Amino acid sequence: MRDINEMLVRRGYLWQSFEIYGGMAGFVDYGPLGNGLRRSLENLWREYFVINERAIEIDTPTIGIEDVFIASGHASSFTDVAIECESCGKIFRADHYIKEKLGIETEETAEFVREVLSTYNLKCECGGRFKDPENFNLMFSTTIGPGKGKPGYLRPETAQGIFINFKRIADYFRDKLPFGVCQIGRAYRNEISPRQGVIRLREFNQAELEYFTHPGNKKHPLFKKYNNLKIPLVDKNDVEHNITLREAVEKGIIAHELLAYFIGKTADFLIRAGIKKELLRFRQHKDDERAHYAVDCWDAEAKTSYGWIEIVGIADRGDYDLTRHKKYSKEDLSIFISYDNPIIRKVKKVIPKMSELGPTFRGKAKKIANALENYSGEIGESIELDVDGERIKVERKFFDVVETEEKIFGERIVPHVIEPSFGLDRITYAILEHSFDKDVVDGEERYVLRLKRWMAPVQVAVLPLLSKEPFTSKAEEIVQILKNSGFFTERDDSGSIGRRYRRYDEIGTPFCVTIDHQTFEDSTVTIRDRDTTEQVRVKIDELPNILRSLLVSERDIKEFGERFR
Amino acid sequence: MRDINEMLVRRGYLWQSFEIYGGMAGFVDYGPLGNGLRRSLENLWREYFVINERAIEIDTPTIGIEDVFIASGHASSFTDVAIECESCGKIFRADHYIKEKLGIETEETAEFVREVLSTYNLKCECGGRFKDPENFNLMFSTTIGPGKGKPGYLRPETAQGIFINFKRIADYFRDKLPFGVCQIGRAYRNEISPRQGVIRLREFNQAELEYFTHPGNKKHPLFKKYNNLKIPLVDKNDVEHNITLREAVEKGIIAHELLAYFIGKTADFLIRAGIKKELLRFRQHKDDERAHYAVDCWDAEAKTSYGWIEIVGIADRGDYDLTRHKKYSKEDLSIFISYDNPIIRKVKKVIPKMSELGPTFRGKAKKIANALENYSGEIGESIELDVDGERIKVERKFFDVVETEEKIFGERIVPHVIEPSFGLDRITYAILEHSFDKDVVDGEERYVLRLKRWMAPVQVAVLPLLSKEPFTSKAEEIVQILKNSGFFTERDDSGSIGRRYRRYDEIGTPFCVTIDHQTFEDSTVTIRDRDTTEQVRVKIDELPNILRSLLVSERDIKEFGERFR
Repeated sequence: MRDINEMLVRRGYLWQSFEIYGGMAGFVDYGPLGNGLRRSLENLWREYFVINERAIEIDTPTIGIEDVFIASGHASSFTDVAIECESCGKIFRADHYIKEKLGIETEETAEFVREVLSTYNLKCECGGRFKDPENFNLMFSTTIGPGKGKPGYLRPETAQGIFINFKRIADYFRDKLPFGVCQIGRAYRNEISPRQGVIRLREFNQAELEYFTHPGNKKHPLFKKYNNLKIPLVDKNDVEHNITLREAVEKGIIAHELLAYFIGKTADFLIRAGIKKELLRFRQHKDDERAHYAVDCWDAEAKTSYGWIEIVGIADRGDYDLTRHKKYSKEDLSIFISYDNPIIRKVKKVIPKMSELGPTFRGKAKKIANALENYSGEIGESIELDVDGERIKVERKFFDVVETEEKIFGERIVPHVIEPSFGLDRITYAILEHSFDKDVVDGEERYVLRLKRWMAPVQVAVLPLLSKEPFTSKAEEIVQILKNSGFFTERDDSGSIGRRYRRYDEIGTPFCVTIDHQTFEDSTVTIRDRDTTEQVRVKIDELPNILRSLLVSERDIKEFGERFR
Repeated sequence: MRDINEMLVRRGYLWQSFEIYGGMAGFVDYGPLGNGLRRSLENLWREYFVINERAIEIDTPTIGIEDVFIASGHASSFTDVAIECESCGKIFRADHYIKEKLGIETEETAEFVREVLSTYNLKCECGGRFKDPENFNLMFSTTIGPGKGKPGYLRPETAQGIFINFKRIADYFRDKLPFGVCQIGRAYRNEISPRQGVIRLREFNQAELEYFTHPGNKKHPLFKKYNNLKIPLVDKNDVEHNITLREAVEKGIIAHELLAYFIGKTADFLIRAGIKKELLRFRQHKDDERAHYAVDCWDAEAKTSYGWIEIVGIADRGDYDLTRHKKYSKEDLSIFISYDNPIIRKVKKVIPKMSELGPTFRGKAKKIANALENYSGEIGESIELDVDGERIKVERKFFDVVETEEKIFGERIVPHVIEPSFGLDRITYAILEHSFDKDVVDGEERYVLRLKRWMAPVQVAVLPLLSKEPFTSKAEEIVQILKNSGFFTERDDSGSIGRRYRRYDEIGTPFCVTIDHQTFEDSTVTIRDRDTTEQVRVKIDELPNILRSLLVSERDIKEFGERFR
C-alpha cells in the first residue's frame, strides 16, 4: 500500500490538495494521470448507463437552495454525531471513535452516544472529558447574495437536481415510462474528521442514475443478459449466496428483477473498468441500515487495503423523493399513464325526480336534487345525503336510476425510482489498487500497473531509441500521427530505453512504440506490450489501425506483427 | 430572443434552476441537449488546448482553504461595491445601478460610489435612501469541519488549483518549459443581483489553460498557423484594427507573439465551435481595466442580444501568481533552467596570508581570514571588511589574489504564465444564438438551429415513416447500429413525418434517417440534411460510415447517395 500511494503521488495520479499550505483532510487533487483515468471511467459509465439505456444526462448546480433540502430531508437528517473534547478541543465522529476505542457499533443518535460515553467512561485521547454529543449536519452551508442573503448548501448528492426537474424531464420523454436521468459531477459531505485519504472525501465525484419506472413494472427487457451471472451476494443476514441473479430474484433475496438487472449491469461495468471480479461482492443493507423509505438496497463493495469498501449503492427509493418534492413544492410530480385501450366502466347514475321532490321538500328540493346528481355511493332503497349540514334520507321514489358507461383513459401515478449511485473516486482508487502489480522481468523487479487498455490515461508512449536526430524528429512525427488519430500519446526521450519502459509500465501505459535504427531503413517501429513485455515490429502506416484494435480488446500483440527481440 | 429562449427551455437545452421552488437568479440547469452541447464544447476545447499543446489536464477541489485566496489576493480584492436601500432593503451592485440610472461608468471603490450617490442624490427605485456603500466579497464562503471549523471558499477561478500545484506539475514535465496545465470545471462568483440569465451566473463552468513559459521566450512554434489571420482587434484606445495577427505583433498592438498565438487559436476554436466570425472580435483591456499585474489582456467578445459579451479572456499574468504563492507558502516555486552549455566565468578569489595577518591582527586574525575568503566584491589595493560590527581596512600585503574559473550550469527562474480563460456557459449560449435561424421550407416557416454538425447533442434521429410494425422494429435495429457506432441517436415515431423533421430541425439535429416502404425492398434508408432539407437514399450497411464522414466535415449530402424526393 505504501508502494502504490508513493507511486500515485510521484507519477501524477493523486496529489494531496493544498499541499504547499499544509494540506487539508478530505480533499484530493487529480494529477494528469488520475484525471485521465477518472475521465475514462466517466466515459465508460456514460456508455453503459446513458447511451445504452433509455436515459439522458443533465447538469444542475452544486449549490442548492434550502427548500430543496428541507423537502429531501437532508436539512434535518443528514447528520453525524460529533463529540468534542473539553480540554484539547478536538472533535471526533462519535461512531468512528467508539468503534475504534471500544469495538462497539453505534447507533447514529446523540442519546445512544451519550449513554456509551457515560457507561464506559470514554475519554478523549488526551485524557480530557467529552462535552455532550451533538448532531452535526454534514452539508456545507453558504449564503447566496449579499447581506443576510439566502441560505444555500453544497449538494450532498447529485440526485436532488434530477428530482426537482422531474416535470421537465417527463415532458422530454413525453411521459412515457420507464426513463433514466443521470448526473455526473461533484457532491459534498462535510465529514467531521476524515482520515482515509481518497476513501473518505469531503468533496467527491458521483455518477448517479435515477431510473423512473411504473410502480407495477420493476422489470427490464435486457435482464436476460445478466440472468446467469454469479457474483457473491451477501444478504441482510450476512449470509453469502453464490447463485445466479435469476435465482436470487426467484428466491426473494433480491427484491425484484429491476434491482437485479442493475446489480448485474454494475458488476459488468466495474469488471470492464478494471475491478477484479474476485475482489468484488454485493452486500444488502440490513434492516436498520437501510433508509426508511428504501424498499431494498445493495452496495457493490471492493476489497482494498482499507478492507471491503462501498463503491456503488443500488437502491429502490420507491416514490419517496417525488412525493416529498410534490408535497413541499405543491407541484404535481405525477404523470398520466394512458391505457392502451380506455377502460369502459358501467356506472349507475341517480336522476332526481323534481316532480316528486318539489312538493315534499319545498325550498330544499333544488339542493337535494343537486346532491342526488353528484352522488356516487351505493344506491339502495334510499340514499342518505348531507345538505347544508343536515342529514336527509331520500326514498327511492324521489329518484330514478339509469345505467351508463364511462371511459377511463388512464391514471395519474407517481413513478418509483431505482438509483444506482457510483462513487467515482473510490472506484478509481480501487481500480488502481487492483491493477498495481510487481513482477520480475529479465531478472529485474518491476512495478506494473495492469490497467485495462481502454482505461489507461496514457495509451501510447513514443520512444526514440536515442535522444538525438533523426530519432527525435521521427518520434515527433509519429506522435503527431497518433494524436491526430485520437490516442492519448506521450513522447519520452530521457534515460535509457529500459528505464523508459519501466516508467511507462509503472503508470500503466499499455503500449510503447520505439523508433530504432531499422525505422529509417524500412519505415517500421516496434510495439511493446506492457504486460507480456513482448515486442512486434510493424509498419508505421499500419500503426494507428493496429493500436486501435489493440486498445479496445485484449488481443495478443503477436497477432499484429513479427516478434522482435 | 424570446423565440430562442422559449425554445431552449421547452426542448431541453437550458432550464431555470429550482424552478418548482420559485427559482434563484444566477443559476442554470443544463437539460439533456444543453448538457450534450456543453460536453461537445469541452471535448473540442481539450482537442485544441490540451491534446494539441504540450499540456495536461488536472482536477482540483472547488472548495479552497483561506491561505490560497489570501495569497492570490481574492480574499481582499475580489469585491464589488454594494448599495443597500434603507427603506426596502434591496441591495444593488453599485456600478450596474449607477450605469443604468445615470449612464456613468463607475470606479469599483466605495469612495467613488459614495461621491456619486451624494453628488447626484441617487435614490433607490422605491424612493428610499441608500446606506453607506460597502465592499462585498464575491467568494461564496463556507466552513470546513465541525464546530468553528476552518474557513473555506468556493473557488472564483480554476486557476489557483493549478498554481499551488506548480511544483508537482513542473516535476511531471521534468522542469522543461514551456508547458501548459488546464482545468475544466465549476467556478463561483456570488453576484450581488444577477439579472441576465445564463450571461451572469453565480455558478459557472470554466476551461482555463495556464501556459507557463520562460520570461524571455514569449513565442510559439506554431504561430505561423495564425500569422495571416485577420479578426477585428479593438485596442485599448477603442481603435479597431483589421490587420493580420503578425502585423498586430509587429506594430506592438498585441504585446507579443505568444499572446497573438492564443488569440489566433481562440478565434479558430470559437469559429469551429459555431461562433459566427462576423459576430466575433477581440478587445484589449484598457489601462484602468487590466489587473495591475497583467502585462496585456485581450477579451474575445461575441455579439448577442445582450450586446457584445466577453466569452474568453487571454492575459499575460507575468510571474504574479507564482511569486505570490511562493511568498505566502514559503515554497520554492521557481524552476532550474539548465544552459545547453555551462557558462564559464573567470572569477578572482582572495587568499588570506595567515603569516602576515597573525602578527598584526592577533586575536582577530582568524576572523579576518574567514571574511577575506568569503569576500566577493571589487578587489583593489585594499579591502574593507565588516568583522563583528567593526570596519577593518585590510591592505594588499595581507592577501594574494588568484584567478579561477567557475562553471555555471543554469539559473533558477519563476516562469511567466499566459492564461486563456474560457467561459463555457456564455460560449454555449452565444453558439445557440448564432445558430438559431428561421426560414421557409415548402411555403412553411420553420425554426432551425444551425449547429455545427460535430457539436450537435443529438447527431442522428431515426424516424420510422409509420408508427407501426415492421417500421418501428426496423427503426430500433438501426438505432442500435448507430449507438454501437458511437453516434448520439434518438428514435422518434410520434406525429407526422413532417412534424418530426421540424422538431429535429429546431433542436439542431443535422441528420434524420427515415425508414420507409422501400427500406423493406432494398435495405436502404433516406438521410435528410437539416440545412438544405435535401434527402438522399443510401444502403443501411453504409450508413455508419457515411454519417461519420458527414459529421466531421461540412460535405454535401449529395456526394453520398441518390437524391430522393
